[in-house]
Amino acid sequence: MTNFADRLAEAVRRKGNSLCVGIDPRWESLPKSIREQFGSASIATIACAFEVFSLRVLDLVASLVPIVKPQSAFFELCGPPGMIALQSVVRRARELGLIVILDSKRGDIASTAVAYADAAFGGLTVNGVHHTIWNADALTVNPYLGRDAVEPFIQSARLSGRGLFVLVRTSNPGSGLFQELDCGGRKLYQHVAQAVNEWNESGFGSCGLGDVGAVVGATHPAELAELRQAMPNVWFLVPGYGAQGGSARDVAAAFRLDGLGAIVNSSRGITFPFHPDEPNWEQAILDATETAIGELRFL
Amino acid sequence: MTNFADRLAEAVRRKGNSLCVGIDPRWESLPKSIREQFGSASIATIACAFEVFSLRVLDLVASLVPIVKPQSAFFELCGPPGMIALQSVVRRARELGLIVILDSKRGDIASTAVAYADAAFGGLTVNGVHHTIWNADALTVNPYLGRDAVEPFIQSARLSGRGLFVLVRTSNPGSGLFQELDCGGRKLYQHVAQAVNEWNESGFGSCGLGDVGAVVGATHPAELAELRQAMPNVWFLVPGYGAQGGSARDVAAAFRLDGLGAIVNSSRGITFPFHPDEPNWEQAILDATETAIGELRFL
Repeated sequence: MTNFADRLAEAVRRKGNSLCVGIDPRWESLPKSIREQFGSASIATIACAFEVFSLRVLDLVASLVPIVKPQSAFFELCGPPGMIALQSVVRRARELGLIVILDSKRGDIASTAVAYADAAFGGLTVNGVHHTIWNADALTVNPYLGRDAVEPFIQSARLSGRGLFVLVRTSNPGSGLFQELDCGGRKLYQHVAQAVNEWNESGFGSCGLGDVGAVVGATHPAELAELRQAMPNVWFLVPGYGAQGGSARDVAAAFRLDGLGAIVNSSRGITFPFHPDEPNWEQAILDATETAIGELRFL
Repeated sequence: MTNFADRLAEAVRRKGNSLCVGIDPRWESLPKSIREQFGSASIATIACAFEVFSLRVLDLVASLVPIVKPQSAFFELCGPPGMIALQSVVRRARELGLIVILDSKRGDIASTAVAYADAAFGGLTVNGVHHTIWNADALTVNPYLGRDAVEPFIQSARLSGRGLFVLVRTSNPGSGLFQELDCGGRKLYQHVAQAVNEWNESGFGSCGLGDVGAVVGATHPAELAELRQAMPNVWFLVPGYGAQGGSARDVAAAFRLDGLGAIVNSSRGITFPFHPDEPNWEQAILDATETAIGELRFL
């Protein structure tokens, strides 16, 4: 079983870039051809449209990028059929050799965190029969509940070579309300960074990075550099590039000198660069992917 | 449309107690008769067993308590069939006149938070057709992402007379790692309490309380009293009573002088007070419910 950090490093090296494509299906943004094929008569047809669009995105980008990040919220908005679509998307992405980060930002007290972690990684085993649930390579986790709420995720992830990305500094405009509070000379997000750095130390792979990563938004470039120093061996998942306003220059500080250490997510900028009426939407996705890869390769 | 705080107050007054029954199905704890009826051959049969057990719990407690709280994690651990079971549980609970708090501790950047909030409350409307998803009365929300991550939940909830419970001080042993950090003379959880108090002010009902509640664990009794003062008109959801170690005396400080203001959750203590082989498990649940109500009525 390979350490998650090493799997991520290998995937990034193989593709020659650190781009993560966020899969955030929204009905109003889908290509008109797919909306018309399925219609919106039931939640099941909407979920089918999400699935077909997402699978097509995977086929388009699989040879180009190392990582995809389905956003659980948009699938959950289609209820149980949406969760079937999410399973299908994760399965296909892994079949295509992509690393899958399930972005669901879970967090709860220990006994409940175990259930979320098992759902994400190891699955449910009852009477010796194993049932796979989401089977993601990594999961985003919210740290607010503290140590015993994060540790079950770490333990579960390590049992099967998976990883975490703990929210440290998020990309949204209002993130400072709590994350920037000064706690004894250091901000809250710096305290969380320190905890992530410690959790990560027991999960190093041979690439020199570990399996407990950090979410650090591209919309705070100065903090990216500071956090890179504070967490030298932690993988960063960097949202906020592209549609949220972060540039390739902004994310440069997230990388280590060896060119590893950061994966840069773009969701809407890659998957919805077209008007729904655009017939050549697949080419638009390919073009947007190549453009983003070019920008990031320049770093 | 009635304000959520008023709906909660009315439900508590009608039942004469503030007990919330947490619905956290776990295969290994289910009555043997239900496990044998469905078996564990597939994830669908496990989810059916969760559903049948949970519905039976609802039938048993519906005339006694005002509120139930399904824990999303345990249903998610059964994948899409588990989410069908969760829908069924929420639907039946509401039919029985119970207030349903969906405990899924969601939180994300604004555009994603809207999707989670719509899934929880208003549902998905596409081309004028409305699709109900979870349809809960209230949702637990994680505040770490800040203002613009919480506000979409507030807006969505208010559109349909629903409410939130924002994590302030959680009941788990490791909750202090970040929540107790001293931020300029006040702890992090006190800053979150201040924000909740402000968010709540624009959602008062005629009962004098508002629709943005706070999760405050029973395992920190002194802080319950302090937070009651800091958030005088905020509904508290108090976990940690019962199996997690909090006593009825510990939770007394969560209530206002008018007897309102707190709902006290018990999950395992109410729903799993029996050995799986116990044939009279339904009576055990009734007895545990009556005992908890008696303890809380004494306050």
